[in-house]
Amino acid sequence: MQPTPGTLASEARTALVLKGCASLTQMMLQAQEECDGHSAYENVATGELDSGPGSGPSPDTDSQGQGAPKDPLLFIQLNELLGWPQVLEWRETGRWVLFEEKLEVGGGRWSAPHVPTLALPSLQKLRSLLAEGLVLLDCPAQSLLELVEQVTRVESLSPELKGQLQSLLLQRPQHLIQTTGTRPCWGSAHPRESLHDEEAPLKEQRQNALRQKLPPGAEAAAVLAGELGFLAQPLGAFVRLQDPVVLGSLTEVPLPSRFFCLLLGPPALGRSYHEMGRAVAVLLSDLQFQWSARRASNLHDLLAALDAFLEEVTVLPPGRWDPTSRIPPPKCLPSQHKRLPSQMQEVKGPSAPRRARAEDRHGQPQHAPSPELQRTGRLFGGLVQDVRRKASWYPSDFLDALHPQCFSAVLYIYLATITNAITFGGLLGEATDGAQGVLESFLGTAVAGAAFCLMAGQPLTILSSTGPVLVFERLLFNFSRDYSLDYLPFRLWVGIWVAIFCLVLVATEASVLVRYFTRFTEEGFCALISLIFIYDAVGKMLSLMHAYPIQRPGSAAYGCFCQYPDPGGNESQWTRTKAEDRDDILSMDLVADHCSLQDLGLVNASLLPPPECVQRGGHPRGPSCHTVPDIAFFSLLLFLTSFLFAMALKHVKTSRFFPSVVRKVLSDFSSVLAILLGCGLDAFLGLATPKLMVPREFKPTLPGRDWLVSSFGTNPWWLSVAAALPALLLSILIFMDQQITAVILNRAEYKLRKGAGFHLDFFCVALLMLLTSAFGLPWYVSATVISLAHMDSLRRESKACAPGEPPSFLGIREQRLTGLVVFILTGVSIFLAPILKFIPMPVLYGIFLYMGVAAISSIQFTKRVQLLLMPAKHQPDLLLLRHVPLSRVHLFTAIQLACLGLLWIVKSTPAAIIFPIMLLGLVGVRKALEWVFSPQELLWLDELMPEKERRAPERGLEPEYSFSGSENEDSELMYQPKAPEINISVN
Amino acid sequence: MQPTPGTLASEARTALVLKGCASLTQMMLQAQEECDGHSAYENVATGELDSGPGSGPSPDTDSQGQGAPKDPLLFIQLNELLGWPQVLEWRETGRWVLFEEKLEVGGGRWSAPHVPTLALPSLQKLRSLLAEGLVLLDCPAQSLLELVEQVTRVESLSPELKGQLQSLLLQRPQHLIQTTGTRPCWGSAHPRESLHDEEAPLKEQRQNALRQKLPPGAEAAAVLAGELGFLAQPLGAFVRLQDPVVLGSLTEVPLPSRFFCLLLGPPALGRSYHEMGRAVAVLLSDLQFQWSARRASNLHDLLAALDAFLEEVTVLPPGRWDPTSRIPPPKCLPSQHKRLPSQMQEVKGPSAPRRARAEDRHGQPQHAPSPELQRTGRLFGGLVQDVRRKASWYPSDFLDALHPQCFSAVLYIYLATITNAITFGGLLGEATDGAQGVLESFLGTAVAGAAFCLMAGQPLTILSSTGPVLVFERLLFNFSRDYSLDYLPFRLWVGIWVAIFCLVLVATEASVLVRYFTRFTEEGFCALISLIFIYDAVGKMLSLMHAYPIQRPGSAAYGCFCQYPDPGGNESQWTRTKAEDRDDILSMDLVADHCSLQDLGLVNASLLPPPECVQRGGHPRGPSCHTVPDIAFFSLLLFLTSFLFAMALKHVKTSRFFPSVVRKVLSDFSSVLAILLGCGLDAFLGLATPKLMVPREFKPTLPGRDWLVSSFGTNPWWLSVAAALPALLLSILIFMDQQITAVILNRAEYKLRKGAGFHLDFFCVALLMLLTSAFGLPWYVSATVISLAHMDSLRRESKACAPGEPPSFLGIREQRLTGLVVFILTGVSIFLAPILKFIPMPVLYGIFLYMGVAAISSIQFTKRVQLLLMPAKHQPDLLLLRHVPLSRVHLFTAIQLACLGLLWIVKSTPAAIIFPIMLLGLVGVRKALEWVFSPQELLWLDELMPEKERRAPERGLEPEYSFSGSENEDSELMYQPKAPEINISVN
Repeated sequence: MQPTPGTLASEARTALVLKGCASLTQMMLQAQEECDGHSAYENVATGELDSGPGSGPSPDTDSQGQGAPKDPLLFIQLNELLGWPQVLEWRETGRWVLFEEKLEVGGGRWSAPHVPTLALPSLQKLRSLLAEGLVLLDCPAQSLLELVEQVTRVESLSPELKGQLQSLLLQRPQHLIQTTGTRPCWGSAHPRESLHDEEAPLKEQRQNALRQKLPPGAEAAAVLAGELGFLAQPLGAFVRLQDPVVLGSLTEVPLPSRFFCLLLGPPALGRSYHEMGRAVAVLLSDLQFQWSARRASNLHDLLAALDAFLEEVTVLPPGRWDPTSRIPPPKCLPSQHKRLPSQMQEVKGPSAPRRARAEDRHGQPQHAPSPELQRTGRLFGGLVQDVRRKASWYPSDFLDALHPQCFSAVLYIYLATITNAITFGGLLGEATDGAQGVLESFLGTAVAGAAFCLMAGQPLTILSSTGPVLVFERLLFNFSRDYSLDYLPFRLWVGIWVAIFCLVLVATEASVLVRYFTRFTEEGFCALISLIFIYDAVGKMLSLMHAYPIQRPGSAAYGCFCQYPDPGGNESQWTRTKAEDRDDILSMDLVADHCSLQDLGLVNASLLPPPECVQRGGHPRGPSCHTVPDIAFFSLLLFLTSFLFAMALKHVKTSRFFPSVVRKVLSDFSSVLAILLGCGLDAFLGLATPKLMVPREFKPTLPGRDWLVSSFGTNPWWLSVAAALPALLLSILIFMDQQITAVILNRAEYKLRKGAGFHLDFFCVALLMLLTSAFGLPWYVSATVISLAHMDSLRRESKACAPGEPPSFLGIREQRLTGLVVFILTGVSIFLAPILKFIPMPVLYGIFLYMGVAAISSIQFTKRVQLLLMPAKHQPDLLLLRHVPLSRVHLFTAIQLACLGLLWIVKSTPAAIIFPIMLLGLVGVRKALEWVFSPQELLWLDELMPEKERRAPERGLEPEYSFSGSENEDSELMYQPKAPEINISVN
Repeated sequence: MQPTPGTLASEARTALVLKGCASLTQMMLQAQEECDGHSAYENVATGELDSGPGSGPSPDTDSQGQGAPKDPLLFIQLNELLGWPQVLEWRETGRWVLFEEKLEVGGGRWSAPHVPTLALPSLQKLRSLLAEGLVLLDCPAQSLLELVEQVTRVESLSPELKGQLQSLLLQRPQHLIQTTGTRPCWGSAHPRESLHDEEAPLKEQRQNALRQKLPPGAEAAAVLAGELGFLAQPLGAFVRLQDPVVLGSLTEVPLPSRFFCLLLGPPALGRSYHEMGRAVAVLLSDLQFQWSARRASNLHDLLAALDAFLEEVTVLPPGRWDPTSRIPPPKCLPSQHKRLPSQMQEVKGPSAPRRARAEDRHGQPQHAPSPELQRTGRLFGGLVQDVRRKASWYPSDFLDALHPQCFSAVLYIYLATITNAITFGGLLGEATDGAQGVLESFLGTAVAGAAFCLMAGQPLTILSSTGPVLVFERLLFNFSRDYSLDYLPFRLWVGIWVAIFCLVLVATEASVLVRYFTRFTEEGFCALISLIFIYDAVGKMLSLMHAYPIQRPGSAAYGCFCQYPDPGGNESQWTRTKAEDRDDILSMDLVADHCSLQDLGLVNASLLPPPECVQRGGHPRGPSCHTVPDIAFFSLLLFLTSFLFAMALKHVKTSRFFPSVVRKVLSDFSSVLAILLGCGLDAFLGLATPKLMVPREFKPTLPGRDWLVSSFGTNPWWLSVAAALPALLLSILIFMDQQITAVILNRAEYKLRKGAGFHLDFFCVALLMLLTSAFGLPWYVSATVISLAHMDSLRRESKACAPGEPPSFLGIREQRLTGLVVFILTGVSIFLAPILKFIPMPVLYGIFLYMGVAAISSIQFTKRVQLLLMPAKHQPDLLLLRHVPLSRVHLFTAIQLACLGLLWIVKSTPAAIIFPIMLLGLVGVRKALEWVFSPQELLWLDELMPEKERRAPERGLEPEYSFSGSENEDSELMYQPKAPEINISVN
């Protein structure tokens, strides 16, 4: 079966849509996003793909342990003979695993790993040298001495030459070994004195940091090359050892050597031995050649493998490419599916890995019906299936958490969660005028989160207040305020109705409809919410500046007295009091003042600041008593500082400074650090900036209410029925918000083994709606960004990886314990609440702005909007632009912009509350776009809707491919990311 | 003659040190900085290098018009036969000049130019097809019809096939022609109906935007490839036309075609025809192959050229490189010096271009004695020589300015100059407590600048107040204030002595000593001055915040009254006045106040703001009368805004947004725009921020002084003698500041034809010292950054350049007129001075900070300091690090840091005034470093001092090259930039 273009394209899409996510997705699963998690040498492996969802609960089983045995990884080292004709010495000048590292002789360091480049003549010279030289396959040598004897014996050399050559070959080479630290330490330069310890690896070899990077079972290949004056003609030897054996200090890492290659010759040829040595090394580092060399039975096989290599090389013309440039390792190695030799197919069917991947993917793609998204046709059928599926994993959901990695995950997610709880709690408090607040936010997060972790289908999900729900809650509050309703009882009924509607959606298995949410819908949703975040953050900042007006010169508001009531209680009448009394009142106020009010004869007034004035029983009088200077600009500074600092810290991740651990911490905790900085600045200056309102004790923020919300309050009874209307809208919103997140979290590229639980998750959300409404707590759904961060902190990666290769992704530690502990800690943190009153509001607005900006800059839509401002010439080489005419791209962007504008207008009118329906309308608009754009264009700009995908002809989708563009190129493209793109909803 | 490593290295250094300069150098001469101004096809040219300094005053002579005729540029187009077996059509799917552009069929656009990559088999298949096929060299065809007949006649084709083939070949191909706009417009899809207009190029062909990019005389090559079902066997033809002729609409640009290549065959081979077509095109775009193909006399020559091409290709292994990746054009094409075929050397000696460049460079390198820097041994010998040399150019110095480019240069430099005059004038006013100010700055800039432009040796220089001199002036002022001296008369004597010392330096030809200023010295100078800028900017901002303190809650300073004198004139006594009087005074003050002071019985006091209070004859009384709220934080906001905005605008240059013209304007005028933004913000809010002090009329800033400074004032007579001591220090400073700039401006890579005038320039500076001291104007020397910007705005570039290739740099419009006009305009702007009083000081501090940060981030020293913070693994691949061990690099950086620390300490002590001597001490430290570092290391970290350079052994400098590293690589490296680095002094 040849994978059809449709499935391949969808596979490429599902595999790669997530690239570039705002903040946390970027660090999430970097390897497999871009390269589909396949390291180059794993492509040869045949067993790794069996570890699909069905292989049982064994999260720590490494893929290498399964299936047919795969060829071990090969470490290749080039030892060069230097110093002819003076003092001959071997020095390691290059090494290869996947990429080349070159010894910088002058710099005394290894170069960064880079793509090796060769000169064609050196490959051709190598071919002829091998053809004429000695090829020993399955040589039984057990030590370097035996090997050297084997290599030199068969040669037509005089005994004297043979002796010279043997002692030269046994000479200990110099290695530049980097031990665990980064200090370069040169190997001993002394030639070896005795041979008896030949096979014992040196201490420095064993301490080599590189060794820990190579997987167990790795083998070595040694290439020895150089010019040797006493040879009359070139000497080439290629040896494959029958049983790999550690050849003393020949290689810098004491690995058993499988291959040995010798390329020596008279100086006439000069540096070409170096280049030929590199050529052998590069050949051996090529998987296909390596495969053939391991199985070659004679010289002919070897030369055929070399020719096969030559068939596939890429050639760069000399005048346009500087051969001394070093190409950094590509983020994504080319897929090997076309390179697998026919012999390899004997091991496991034709193009096994690729096929297996396609099938694997096909089993759980985003929009093709996966088991979780197949309609059963029975009431609550999906829910029952979800419960049944997850129940079998339940014990392992706790056992799998027993790993130290989970501790750091808990710390990270805990800090992220309380940052979220503080920010959203503060904003909710403002939006609902104190009907809810930080305390409710903490309590609700802890209770709802913990309950969800225990019950949900996807326990990696972190429940949180999300932007859309917050927006809706604000609209609901404004509505109830405008009609003088009792908010919390009204909200309780909305919650009850939402729970009912959601249960209906669960019963009817509505979750399977998420397949109609294409990127168009997701991006519209995300963009609108991000814009609301940005607009609100800036708006709140401006209204704060309005509340603390700036004093301009010439403004009337200037000056403020503190007036004390006279003894008779009549403030407005002036009476002369005794000098003693006056002194008593005024002396302490006017210490620093050279102009006493007493001089003015003013005795029952002072220049005390208003708060102290009130404290002393006085009344502040004067036009500027209500203005506090400096607060407006200081708040603005705090706002900008926290925003810019959070942005900058987020980018520390990709800078070159500091070790990666430090960068990761700074980047991961950017919001927390920005809040701390803001609080520090505020505390340092001690100005009376507006702070987060936190109740002094453990009681609801709204004074006088019980925890349990009364069922009617002052509202008329029929309002409990009328609440069904807003509840319908909220249900739509919660469905979209919850399911878009769920789809992103359960994408195939995260290699989740325990499966998703769309119906069960939604069922939990419905129940929690009921609970949180009854207790007047915020409403919760799954939050994308923080859940992705949770998954990222639990990712399992292969530790052993070649220089230049990103670690390969193995899976996620799927369990319920980390989430549970995070929410228990959040619950405990309620008692830390009094500390929170030191957080200035402008800092929270800054973080809010940062969240909005980060979210909106992550979506492909934003990138396309940017294209509108770029001259065609300077546009980046997006795959999208290769395949869709620019005018069509702009049209698509313009339609999205128009939709967004319409949504914004609706949001700004009194009809704002119906915006969830408008959001749902995006799905309709997307459907209508099928009349405007061809399926081909939609495939690149968006993705296909389910029916279209099935209807698509086998190759008809790609008409252009049939007559233009390199076939080579296009079939490659199908496996590649279209562009860095992502669908996320704001947490 | 083989260039020795020493000269090559120094050449590489001198060619490339300027890369990356803070702000203006980055845009300056980008092409030749990195690539030495040599476009790839110019390397073949043999005549261009004659246009050295000696070729006479003909600035507009294009290099292409000189010397031996060079091969014309070749435009290559691939027309592919698509649509088999349905409707056959030719479509242009690729084009080449230097790089490949691929038709994005789906996207309907041309790809960005990229380095072409080929598959090796396609080259081999091409070789065999050519070997078997038809090769017509010097074919006399005059039209497409004739050509097609020629190509098809010789083939062993049946008449019917021949007819079919002919009509197919005559079919008009489809081109995607981008006319002057960016709108893609497809060529007509209708097949041609008549043949009589065959040779007339189509309108769309003539409007092709590409045509304007190609130089006159360019030729075309057409490659036609595709699969054709009715052919039984492959058909290959390679034609070189005797006389190139426009072949109708065959190529998208109506150029005369020189080559024509046909590659058709049965479909069995499939897409390999496309790849073979690309291979021919890439071959033809290679200069060496093209050279051979133009001169080949038979098939054998052609195949030999192909084999020579194959010898030099770079090979990328298949598993590590995705062949579908597009490599962007390298910034710097590989030097062709090793690729020139032996035949080409017949035209003009062996490796002519490279050699010529080496000699050209050798004639005017930075540290080898150039004509301007050779000691004559006679008193004023250098000056006389300079005057003599420049006199012959004097008429052309005005005639060469007659070019529209000079108008935009004047506008740009004028704005930069007055920005400078305002900033430095404002700072000078603060530093000297009003002894000088903005007015002096404008007047002095105009007078000194204009005089210098008329007299100087290097009229491109823009004179300006510079940081170092400003620092010294501040020290001098503090000294004279501490000892209660009359500043301006004292300063006059310092100026007189400086002029005397400078004349002595001119007489003794001291300017030749600049050769001892290595990068170590320049960077030390630059770093110290930049740090002083940064420190001062931040310090001034902080002292401003101190002057306008923040009002904290609880601070005693709160409240302010306005007290009126009572009728008896006794303020401190309370008297009851009549109600009528009271109303009269208070009614207008307390309109907005619901709490009247009358209630308090307080009648002769009000809450008027202090300024209005004073105006009404009252006295402000109270602790907070002297604090103005909100100013501190608003100033901080203005400071940060102008700094960040200027930084951001500077980076707009390298963004992808907006057309390049807009980007250039935004980037060039970043300081001006940042100042305007700051002023706008300030004006909008209307707060009483501290503003630039500008005198209301045209008179010296210091009240009561004449324009001519009195010779003694209140100072004792002997002070005029004692002034010699500070004058000595200032002379050293001025010498260093002036000469470092002069060296940078006169570097060989700017291709100045009229030569430098180190002695004459310094002589002018000395005379102007006298003039400015006498009139109490600021002191002036050459300013690096603004002079470089001046040169950049006058650069001459080749207009015709291939897609992907940067325009090549031809030279600078060297003349005196632009500078003169700029300074005349500056003089006129003195009457605009009243407008300047709207500029808030914090904005100027922000610009000052920006200048400091931009300058310090441009030097290599900063990059090495950054290396200290980077783990070795993440360090960038600097050539420096390839050749010097990291520990040695860090040691060098640490020594520089220590020197800088010492200088800073000296600057902060009472001995601050001697810091010019300390700066000179850097030269000594650098000399001492020769005992610590090897010449090899110093060559990479710094540069060699003159003696060393001569003493350096021929190859001994590079011992490592003799035994390691690809020879290929290292010899290339010698021609390449070591790292983006620069020496600049702050303007």
